[in-house]
Amino acid sequence: MRWIQFSEPASGAMHHGILDDDDRVHAVRGLPWMDPERTGQVHRLADVKVEVPLIPRTFYAAGLNYVTHIRQYAAETGTQAVVPQQADIGYRAINALVAHGEDVVIPSDAQQIEYEGELVVVIGKRARNLSPDEALGCVFGYTIGNDVSERLWQKSDRTFWRAKNADTFKPMGPWVDTDFDLAKAETTVSVNGAVTTRFASSAMLFDIPTFISRMSRYLTLHPGDVIWMGTDGKSPRIVAGDVVEVAITGLGALRNRFVAE
Amino acid sequence: MRWIQFSEPASGAMHHGILDDDDRVHAVRGLPWMDPERTGQVHRLADVKVEVPLIPRTFYAAGLNYVTHIRQYAAETGTQAVVPQQADIGYRAINALVAHGEDVVIPSDAQQIEYEGELVVVIGKRARNLSPDEALGCVFGYTIGNDVSERLWQKSDRTFWRAKNADTFKPMGPWVDTDFDLAKAETTVSVNGAVTTRFASSAMLFDIPTFISRMSRYLTLHPGDVIWMGTDGKSPRIVAGDVVEVAITGLGALRNRFVAE
Repeated sequence: MRWIQFSEPASGAMHHGILDDDDRVHAVRGLPWMDPERTGQVHRLADVKVEVPLIPRTFYAAGLNYVTHIRQYAAETGTQAVVPQQADIGYRAINALVAHGEDVVIPSDAQQIEYEGELVVVIGKRARNLSPDEALGCVFGYTIGNDVSERLWQKSDRTFWRAKNADTFKPMGPWVDTDFDLAKAETTVSVNGAVTTRFASSAMLFDIPTFISRMSRYLTLHPGDVIWMGTDGKSPRIVAGDVVEVAITGLGALRNRFVAE
Repeated sequence: MRWIQFSEPASGAMHHGILDDDDRVHAVRGLPWMDPERTGQVHRLADVKVEVPLIPRTFYAAGLNYVTHIRQYAAETGTQAVVPQQADIGYRAINALVAHGEDVVIPSDAQQIEYEGELVVVIGKRARNLSPDEALGCVFGYTIGNDVSERLWQKSDRTFWRAKNADTFKPMGPWVDTDFDLAKAETTVSVNGAVTTRFASSAMLFDIPTFISRMSRYLTLHPGDVIWMGTDGKSPRIVAGDVVEVAITGLGALRNRFVAE
C-alpha cells in the first residue's frame, strides 16, 4: 500500500491518503500507522500537491553505509577511507525537508553540491531492545531520500549543520510504500534524464535490522521516526538548473530541480 | 511569564499553562507562542506532573561554547583543546528528553557519566536571514537543559548518538520563562545538594545573537525549535543514586535523579 501526504491546491489543507493503482488518492483521517479511516474524499493525483510524506519525530541517518561511496568520498577529499566498525547512527534536521517536485535551493556561497540517493525506513511502532530478528517488526514502510550535500562545508565545519541541513537539502518522498522487497531493489540516480549512479539498494555495510537492533538497545524508536540508510557511488557536481531523480525499484521516483538562491 | 507543560495525574491529559507567583498553574488551549487562551482551569503546581515544557521541532545544540569546558574536556581525554573558529550548530534527539523530576537511566554498559548544565533558547517565531541585532526577536523564552554525556562513547563512536542521546539523557525544564536577564545569570550545578560547578551563563564563546544570525543564513528557524547553548566547567563522574540539579538565575532549577538500568 502506498501512503501519500498531499494538500488541496485551493485550500492548502493537508491530508494523508492512500494512493491506488489508478493514481487516485483516497484521503484519510489520522496518521498512516494509526489505522486511520477513509474520509470518502477521492482526488486524482494530478489534482493535488504532493507533500513530504511525513514530518519525522526524530530524523536519523546512517551516513557512511556503502563501501564504494566511502572509498570514492575519501579519494575525492584526499582523506583516508575510514570504514565504520559499528552501526553508529547520525542525525539530519527537519527544516531541510522538501517534497517530491519542490526545488532544492543552492545557497549563493555553496560551491560543491552533490546528491546522495538513499533508501528511507519509516518506523510505525514504538520499539526498544529489539533483536536483529525482531527489528523489522517496527517498520511501517519505505520511501526515498536525497541527502543533498555541500562537500566543502562537510570538510570545513565542525558539524553537518549547513553541509547537509541547509533549507531544502533533504528531499523525501514521493510516498511511503508498505510493500517493499529490498533484495530485488536497485537505486538509480539520474541527472537531467541521464543515469549517473546505480547500485544494489541492499549492498549496505550494516543492514536495516543491525541498525534498528543496535539503536533500540539505547533509545526508543517512535512511530514517525525515519532512518535514512546511506548511499553508494559518487555524484557529479550539481548546478542550478539540473533536475535530479532518485528512483528505487518498487518505491517510485523522487524528482527535484536545483535552483540558485 | 513562566510557561509550563503539565499532565493531570488522574487522566494523564497534557496541557500547557501559565505558572503564577503563587505556584498555581492556569491551563491554556494551544501552544504558548501562539497567544493561547486560558481554559479557566487552575491547578496547584504540587497537584500536577511537570512535563517536558515542549517537544522541539528541531533540537539544536551548540556543543563546545565555553572556553574553560573545552580546555578541561581536552585535558580529561588527553586530546588537544580545539576552540571552534565559527558558530557551527549541532543536534540532539527528541527521544532523549525527560522532564524535571524524572529519572535519568544509566545504561548498564555506561562507564563515565557526566552532567552539562546549559541555558536553552526557545524559538517563538519563524525566522530566516536575521542580523545579529534582529536575532533575539525570534526568541520566545528560556529554560534549562542537562546535556548528560557518556564520555567513553563520546570518544569511541563516530557520532554522539548514544553518548548524548540515549533515552533520558536530555532533561529539560522545569518551565520556559519569557523574562530572563542573561547578563545577570549564573549557572550552578549541584550533586546531592553540594555545588560542583558554577559559571556566568553569559560567558559564551559565541553568543546567542551570533548563533541565531548564522543559523538563519542557511536555515529557517521555526516556533518550537530549541537551541542548547553549551556548558562551562567540569562535571564529576555521576553514579546511580546521585541527584543533579542545574539552576540558572531567574529560570528556577532542573532536578533529576540518576538510576541504574
